[in-house]
Amino acid sequence: MANEIKELTKREVNYSQWYNDLVIKADLAENSAVRGCMVIKPYGYAIWEKIQRQLDDMFKETGHVNAYFPLLIPKSFLSREADHVEGFAKECAVVTHYRLKNDPEGGGVIVDPEAKLEEELIIRPTSETIIWNTYRSWIQSYRDLPILINQWANVMRWEMRTRLFLRTAEFLWQEGHTAHATKEEAVEETTKMLNVYADFAENYLALPVLKGVKTASERFAGALDTYCIEALMQDGKALQAGTSHFLGQNFAKAFDVQFLNNEGKREYVWSTSWGVSTRLMGALIMAHSDDNGLVLPPKLAPFQVVIVPIYKNEEGLALINEKVASITKELKDLGVSVKYDNATNKKPGWKFAEYELKGVPVRLAMGARDLENGTIEVARRDTLTKETVSIEGIAQYIKNLLEEIQLNIFQKALKFREESTVAVDTYEEFKEQIEKGGFVLAHWDGTAETEERIKEETKATIRCIPLNNDKTPGVDMLTGKPSVQRVVFARSY
Amino acid sequence: MANEIKELTKREVNYSQWYNDLVIKADLAENSAVRGCMVIKPYGYAIWEKIQRQLDDMFKETGHVNAYFPLLIPKSFLSREADHVEGFAKECAVVTHYRLKNDPEGGGVIVDPEAKLEEELIIRPTSETIIWNTYRSWIQSYRDLPILINQWANVMRWEMRTRLFLRTAEFLWQEGHTAHATKEEAVEETTKMLNVYADFAENYLALPVLKGVKTASERFAGALDTYCIEALMQDGKALQAGTSHFLGQNFAKAFDVQFLNNEGKREYVWSTSWGVSTRLMGALIMAHSDDNGLVLPPKLAPFQVVIVPIYKNEEGLALINEKVASITKELKDLGVSVKYDNATNKKPGWKFAEYELKGVPVRLAMGARDLENGTIEVARRDTLTKETVSIEGIAQYIKNLLEEIQLNIFQKALKFREESTVAVDTYEEFKEQIEKGGFVLAHWDGTAETEERIKEETKATIRCIPLNNDKTPGVDMLTGKPSVQRVVFARSY
Repeated sequence: MANEIKELTKREVNYSQWYNDLVIKADLAENSAVRGCMVIKPYGYAIWEKIQRQLDDMFKETGHVNAYFPLLIPKSFLSREADHVEGFAKECAVVTHYRLKNDPEGGGVIVDPEAKLEEELIIRPTSETIIWNTYRSWIQSYRDLPILINQWANVMRWEMRTRLFLRTAEFLWQEGHTAHATKEEAVEETTKMLNVYADFAENYLALPVLKGVKTASERFAGALDTYCIEALMQDGKALQAGTSHFLGQNFAKAFDVQFLNNEGKREYVWSTSWGVSTRLMGALIMAHSDDNGLVLPPKLAPFQVVIVPIYKNEEGLALINEKVASITKELKDLGVSVKYDNATNKKPGWKFAEYELKGVPVRLAMGARDLENGTIEVARRDTLTKETVSIEGIAQYIKNLLEEIQLNIFQKALKFREESTVAVDTYEEFKEQIEKGGFVLAHWDGTAETEERIKEETKATIRCIPLNNDKTPGVDMLTGKPSVQRVVFARSY
Repeated sequence: MANEIKELTKREVNYSQWYNDLVIKADLAENSAVRGCMVIKPYGYAIWEKIQRQLDDMFKETGHVNAYFPLLIPKSFLSREADHVEGFAKECAVVTHYRLKNDPEGGGVIVDPEAKLEEELIIRPTSETIIWNTYRSWIQSYRDLPILINQWANVMRWEMRTRLFLRTAEFLWQEGHTAHATKEEAVEETTKMLNVYADFAENYLALPVLKGVKTASERFAGALDTYCIEALMQDGKALQAGTSHFLGQNFAKAFDVQFLNNEGKREYVWSTSWGVSTRLMGALIMAHSDDNGLVLPPKLAPFQVVIVPIYKNEEGLALINEKVASITKELKDLGVSVKYDNATNKKPGWKFAEYELKGVPVRLAMGARDLENGTIEVARRDTLTKETVSIEGIAQYIKNLLEEIQLNIFQKALKFREESTVAVDTYEEFKEQIEKGGFVLAHWDGTAETEERIKEETKATIRCIPLNNDKTPGVDMLTGKPSVQRVVFARSY
């Protein structure tokens, strides 16, 4: 079994099955015994740790600090902000008791009816309410502002249909919650963090994203504006990869958080929140991978290079081991992470397939002839090409190659997105394009009614009103009413 | 209010109140709206992040990888291991429903009675059960072993009496869960991780610890042996700072996890688990701090050096700013973390008190005369001493000083522990010493009855059977029965 090569369903046969196969077979995650909750396996978690570390550095560079707030939220807190409760009360895990006991009738352990909570507690679906209840005692004057806090945490939303990484009941994320003295500062923070997310997506995940604003019906429950980054997956469906919310004074009013401004007057505090989650893992997997397995951008790969020896006997292996030790050291000195797999119970062919499946960006193979010639075989995961190069200066060569691969993965995804983005003017064209997948740019009259009708008839939603696009006005393809710019439609995850 | 100096209760007046004052006033943590759950504030969380990062590095150096398992555990899992359920079922948060709804009678949101779970879910108090249920499908053969996994997570135990960091309903921790082919390997892992914890405690927390084994009545629910590190706080009470459990085959049997050994026979897997938590924050605070505030070991201080300018006017400040910029750069180049506080709305005296309260290891102050003389004032937090030194080579001087402070804090705690450790031979002496506090070494006959009687009569428990102590036999101070070595008694947190 250990030597069996793991086959994936082909993308064109069944993209959804391909994704599930890949997540399972590349040892990224699996379903658990608890409905909708996943186990993130060590290889998957190692990628998440790289994502976390990089984002955390970027948050700190922009002046944020981390803190930790309670997992449980009193039920009544959810109701304080009217929109918020509508958005989150429907799908939450409710703690009602705090003790189990032995069943006096011998039925194992049962919930102790005497240990009922006076007020039920909700496992956080997001933490605005508990955090703003806390900020009330932290903020008295403008001198206490801004508060720029981030939290790394688990959250829970009782989703009915779940998929590993993309939509799970419990997921891991970070949630920034900031408090400001003025509207301008809060809006500036919202867009600053949107830009941090876009920078991270493009330069680390190698994922081109559109930056935009959500329509009113797609907004976060409690926000005045939700900014987002939207990415395109290989099957032509969009994926929302991160959101940054301008919350106005909604939560400050709901939790009565006021401050004395520099003129000595009491005002409600302005706020933002922003988050990305383990969903990014789903985006990373779906955007770049192929029928052979994962394709990881070098900056987020748990190890960037794997070296496989090809040998006939123990003496041969010993000679290769020695040569590889010096190459490994050179690579590590340049900051390249390397795994040397000289396990003797698996064949090179199996190892090649396994590391392809796991998306290791560069595979080096060294055999007896390489040793004689002073060469090594270099295989790229992104292009599946191989070449034989001199081991003279190999470490610097690999370091440069990793940068090239990082860029190439991004360029490939960008090219795909560009080819999959079409502007249309009529509803007929629109429906045709939506069937094909991709981003469809169209004029919209700005009403929730039209948006809803399009969604019902085509399953496409407005992914965002793009921020940096051309602002040519036009007319709504359905109603003929005026439109100030095209918006981005797609079917989505 | 911002300029008010925060006074702490003195330790000798009320140690417990001093601790609470310190946690609150140094901005480490506070109680939340949810009973027993704390908010870890940014300054406290920054220390926890340093603890995490260092431990994580040490776990990885010893071959462990991180993963993530679900927050929720099916109720029936808890019952699988008989001792485990006894230990944990009594104090857990129970999720019974997955939806709220609007009260049709207008009472806000209520639990939707139609959204009742078929089987209740428990918020993990520890993850042995869900993890061993998962390992069953990961382990078939000896080739799949060992599994060396760690998880960073939040857990919840419904404690009745809580104290910030020391005992909270929700806390943050890491839990290692390893699986091995042989008993010997599992035992070796248990002691290896105990040694990692002791190394971390002594060299990072600057906290001398005793390594030992718990008695049967103090064991983890489900373990065959619980190893621990025990530290002594300044009030003479002991604090268990970390535990490492040898679980035998208990969880493998409870969850039917078997493997084919290298002779082709099926065997149950051997296991360990080990953990430390945010309780370490409590140990760190209580072990070293004084009536002026926190005393942080330099290796875990969010910033190691604070620089305060002392100036008469803006030109004076500008000159100091310039000089400090070059000192800061030199310090950062040597890996020393620095904060320069030139805020103009607070006086130097206030800043001095504030950074003393927050335990910053070294405070530098620079005034006009220093600028003239090419000197700077260096104040040590651990000894509260000051000296004026030349700024020539100041960065290296500070770097060395930080190492000296780290060592001095440890030595001071070690000296205190040594002076607070007494061997006694009679129960009269024992009771007298226990009243005074500290570790009391006494002979014990090895029975739970004697242990329980001593606990009832003196509130002292056996903290551990020490691993590295002298093994001179003797007789139990109460029963006169034979004893193979002295054990460590204390009152504890």
